Amino acid sequence: MRIKLDKQSLCNAVATVNHAISSRTTMPILEGIKIKTTKEGVQFTCYDMTLGIETVILATVQEEGEAVVPGRLFYELTRKLPDDADVDMYFDKTSVEIVCAGSKTHIQTLPAEDFPMLPDIEENVQFNFSQEKIKNMIKRTLFAAAIDESRPVLTGVLFEIDSDSIRLISLDGYRMAISGKDIGEKENLVTAIVPSATLSEVGRLLENEGSVKISISQSHILFQTGNTRMISRLIEGEYIKYRQIIPMEWQTRFTMSSIALAQSIDRAATISSGSNNLVAFNIGSNQVNIDSENELGNVHEVITTQVEGKEIQIAFNARYISDILKNIESQDIVLSFTTNVSPCVITPAEDDDFLYLLLPVRIYTE
Amino acid sequence: MRIKLDKQSLCNAVATVNHAISSRTTMPILEGIKIKTTKEGVQFTCYDMTLGIETVILATVQEEGEAVVPGRLFYELTRKLPDDADVDMYFDKTSVEIVCAGSKTHIQTLPAEDFPMLPDIEENVQFNFSQEKIKNMIKRTLFAAAIDESRPVLTGVLFEIDSDSIRLISLDGYRMAISGKDIGEKENLVTAIVPSATLSEVGRLLENEGSVKISISQSHILFQTGNTRMISRLIEGEYIKYRQIIPMEWQTRFTMSSIALAQSIDRAATISSGSNNLVAFNIGSNQVNIDSENELGNVHEVITTQVEGKEIQIAFNARYISDILKNIESQDIVLSFTTNVSPCVITPAEDDDFLYLLLPVRIYTE
Repeated sequence: MRIKLDKQSLCNAVATVNHAISSRTTMPILEGIKIKTTKEGVQFTCYDMTLGIETVILATVQEEGEAVVPGRLFYELTRKLPDDADVDMYFDKTSVEIVCAGSKTHIQTLPAEDFPMLPDIEENVQFNFSQEKIKNMIKRTLFAAAIDESRPVLTGVLFEIDSDSIRLISLDGYRMAISGKDIGEKENLVTAIVPSATLSEVGRLLENEGSVKISISQSHILFQTGNTRMISRLIEGEYIKYRQIIPMEWQTRFTMSSIALAQSIDRAATISSGSNNLVAFNIGSNQVNIDSENELGNVHEVITTQVEGKEIQIAFNARYISDILKNIESQDIVLSFTTNVSPCVITPAEDDDFLYLLLPVRIYTE
Repeated sequence: MRIKLDKQSLCNAVATVNHAISSRTTMPILEGIKIKTTKEGVQFTCYDMTLGIETVILATVQEEGEAVVPGRLFYELTRKLPDDADVDMYFDKTSVEIVCAGSKTHIQTLPAEDFPMLPDIEENVQFNFSQEKIKNMIKRTLFAAAIDESRPVLTGVLFEIDSDSIRLISLDGYRMAISGKDIGEKENLVTAIVPSATLSEVGRLLENEGSVKISISQSHILFQTGNTRMISRLIEGEYIKYRQIIPMEWQTRFTMSSIALAQSIDRAATISSGSNNLVAFNIGSNQVNIDSENELGNVHEVITTQVEGKEIQIAFNARYISDILKNIESQDIVLSFTTNVSPCVITPAEDDDFLYLLLPVRIYTE
């Protein structure tokens, strides 16, 4: 194989597939990047057996072929090559010579036959969305997926896809995040539970422009954008029936600036007790008091706002509130409460596409 | 004590003194910030028994006094206070209430009597330099001081001060960095060995404008800028007679762009062998070849430049060359060599205020 590529395109391609390089593996070939000539140019592939990423860039192909280069080393080397220069790569059976301006590097390669194939996905059922929309939906749900692996389905994000709408759901037993309008439980609904780790890489690679095609099979999900394909294994199992967890009514409700709340919570969390970062809300008729304390002292925050409904005292884990406030851009949010032992619902004031549900810490009795 | 301060000034003062908070200490008071009213406003002091930093800001003093607040917590709390607001602090014997807009915090304090005094330095012998100059000199020498504590004097930077000139020297047995013109070994020369760790903090606090006054006593050095005083303990002992290490002649010499060299070294270092990151220079009459290799492959770099004197083959630790190139801004540098077992001298092409000396790795025999 002999190819000539533009340095910047080469670096972009390597940076794209790089996220699916396996870091701990007993198969050294998975630490590599497969390079292969195609009709369109040159294809780069990484695959850690959970996530596979493949991208094609334009290149001058002087001689066809395929080979696997050591991933991390190739990434380091190529990004350090002189800018604005062409890169020539000459492969023989066991190595490649990389020539760029006054720099000549020679490294070992592995045979491409040993590199596992990415799974095949029938692309006849395909959904089309804006990349920006999916990127935002991932951001708004990913953080609330479970870390603890005792219930594997909860370590992923549930995708519900209809002919023209999509909803993402995550929950970890303490909180739930939902992005997208309710699609219902139709018969033709396509669902998939995508592992958080791979979805995080997908979210990183999606851009703010253009569209993404999503295809789902029994075992895999495929995201396609421009010349890049990202294929992730799905988590097997039945997801929790999350609709029945959402409270239908409220007893106390108020609207407030998400930034003002974030700053108050941030200050209160500086002094908070225990591993659950306890902060207490004392909600009156026209103000919300937030209190925290530990052996070093205490913080008392007052935010003035009109409160509808009953007064209530309720406590939360400060980190869980901060998490949600970091992941929405909304200026105003609505907080709704039923009792101080039942979940609080947080929604943006001007956007019904997003819902966050948070269990209180039980320090008060109703 | 009752004081009213502007939030931003308060945060700046805390961020300034903060660097001298002791992190591992058996004296909890050293983890604190001493706050004291003065004629000029309010003074903040931290002192880890090696470095002491003191700064004064304008404030409304409603009641005089002094107290010690817990350092890290106070730093966290104050920077999170609402912006563009006044901060009221009400101290009683054992605690302080901090009030700012809708936020009220209450934390424990310690008695100021227990806080150690900063050492006194007679300021009648004072040297005055531009902050930018001293900041740059610190940057150009600090990285070459020894980490290994087997010869304590080498873990510091040697200051040599004359009535109107200053020179900084560091060396670790493999390399030496000198910033400032040679002052000679006059009788009235003031010298001091300043610990690297504290000098790094001083360098961080110096700005690109204004001047700094330097005073030196038997055991301490004082840097004064505006309203801030930084006092560091000195390292006792005799510094190495560094002048005799500098080669007086050269056999091979060339000039090259420091950026081109940095990039070539960076690429070569990606593939380099052993713990000493070996890269080999093969210097011909009109080009410099840089080579490295390990079990993964090899890199060959060619830089075209006019070489004066004899051809030479010599090898270096890539990291030591990168260090120097990172810490000079010069576009062109001159490299001078005598033999392949004696030190190489690197100087900027257009600035004789800086000299870097580097021992080769002995892989060639003369």
